[in-house]
Amino acid sequence: MIFKQLFEPDSSTYSYLISCPDTGKTALIDPVLDTVERDLAVLQQMGLKLDYSIDTHVHADHLTGAKRLKAIAGSQIVYPAMLDLACVDIGAREGQALMVGNIVIQPLFTPGHTDHHHAYLIDNGTQQMLFSGDALLIEACGRTDFQSGDAHALYRSIHDKFFSLPDETLVYPGHDYEGRFITTIAQEKQRNPRLGNNRSEAEFVKTMQEMDLPYPRKIDFAVPGNEGCGECPDNIPEQYRSPCARHDQG
Amino acid sequence: MIFKQLFEPDSSTYSYLISCPDTGKTALIDPVLDTVERDLAVLQQMGLKLDYSIDTHVHADHLTGAKRLKAIAGSQIVYPAMLDLACVDIGAREGQALMVGNIVIQPLFTPGHTDHHHAYLIDNGTQQMLFSGDALLIEACGRTDFQSGDAHALYRSIHDKFFSLPDETLVYPGHDYEGRFITTIAQEKQRNPRLGNNRSEAEFVKTMQEMDLPYPRKIDFAVPGNEGCGECPDNIPEQYRSPCARHDQG
Repeated sequence: MIFKQLFEPDSSTYSYLISCPDTGKTALIDPVLDTVERDLAVLQQMGLKLDYSIDTHVHADHLTGAKRLKAIAGSQIVYPAMLDLACVDIGAREGQALMVGNIVIQPLFTPGHTDHHHAYLIDNGTQQMLFSGDALLIEACGRTDFQSGDAHALYRSIHDKFFSLPDETLVYPGHDYEGRFITTIAQEKQRNPRLGNNRSEAEFVKTMQEMDLPYPRKIDFAVPGNEGCGECPDNIPEQYRSPCARHDQG
Repeated sequence: MIFKQLFEPDSSTYSYLISCPDTGKTALIDPVLDTVERDLAVLQQMGLKLDYSIDTHVHADHLTGAKRLKAIAGSQIVYPAMLDLACVDIGAREGQALMVGNIVIQPLFTPGHTDHHHAYLIDNGTQQMLFSGDALLIEACGRTDFQSGDAHALYRSIHDKFFSLPDETLVYPGHDYEGRFITTIAQEKQRNPRLGNNRSEAEFVKTMQEMDLPYPRKIDFAVPGNEGCGECPDNIPEQYRSPCARHDQG
């Protein structure tokens, strides 16, 4: 499998390029609107054409690049099926593998950060590669205090769906805010301050409830925009308008 | 490839089990004498027989399990060829791949921690997997203040041989003292406090020279013991004798 980890610095988001060398079929997991041009340049340099964008959930901290990529590259939009959004081409469901050429992607229904969050699991032949979205982050996890979040559900998602994977499973998170790129299931079981060391569900829920987090700066336009697969909404504040404006002009 | 990361807590050493599913050929990278019985039990549970032990260098902080594994399992001993040790079956040389069944292991001559240190590189088909030994550790590196260490050489090894690898390369270190399991080349280029962020060779050498590190507690018996591929030396202090004694009794 061809694989590349890409970073969008404003929202500290990781996107992941995966491509099947046998068929040329290519996908981006969690592409960001702000870096669509960069991502397309990377694809071009690698001689690849985008077939699918695959989102883990309706993001609140950035606009997805899904709709823009479809407009430019003709890629199909994959979102969790349960959202039943009009802009989506392919619905992701646990138990129903997504194929990117010969690459088998297993969606894992992992609610808690949002009620529809799906992670994606790929076996590279040596390790499992878990694209954990905003459920499990490196020594952290996604917020549960807005947008249908539920700390009880997140605890169960991580314990039941992730911590049951082999220790060596590579965890590629949806974000990192400290320049880290990767972790493993063993490492999070041991070191995650919220979930590691066999912390109980009650301890986890208490930790999440006691967090005093700022109101997400992009949520008011990002959530409705992402319900349109990365539509640029009318209410977007001036300072966040440039990725939308670039397209309007180009 | 079948792959397992194993930990020896007294010296915080990682050993790595790799096995070719097509041929059953199996190797342990940097096995530790203290955990030979555990490692053999793991192999047995997995239905595997050990063919090779592969050391990165003559360790100063633990005795290798190489000789004991050979005595019990019949595995061949791989060490850097330049050491020219009588106990070694196969010498590792950069430019000369080691084959474990169909698995291709590229030795990388990476002096600095010791003058003969070799790392090992495997392409799993998706990522490069770098077994970095004691050259590059997670947000750290091996010591350069004893046993033919040379900070200039270590800087050049890490920059020339490791930081030229793809960003996504998985780095599996020889040790970690804080419960971390994995890093990537991108992460170390960015976050390694001694080597990251384009730190210069002069800065690195100064950092290494100014470290005030304790005398290694096992070095006086570990180095001569490991020059015998994990021979239990006569001068081993009472508190470290048990892994040797277990074998004498069994």
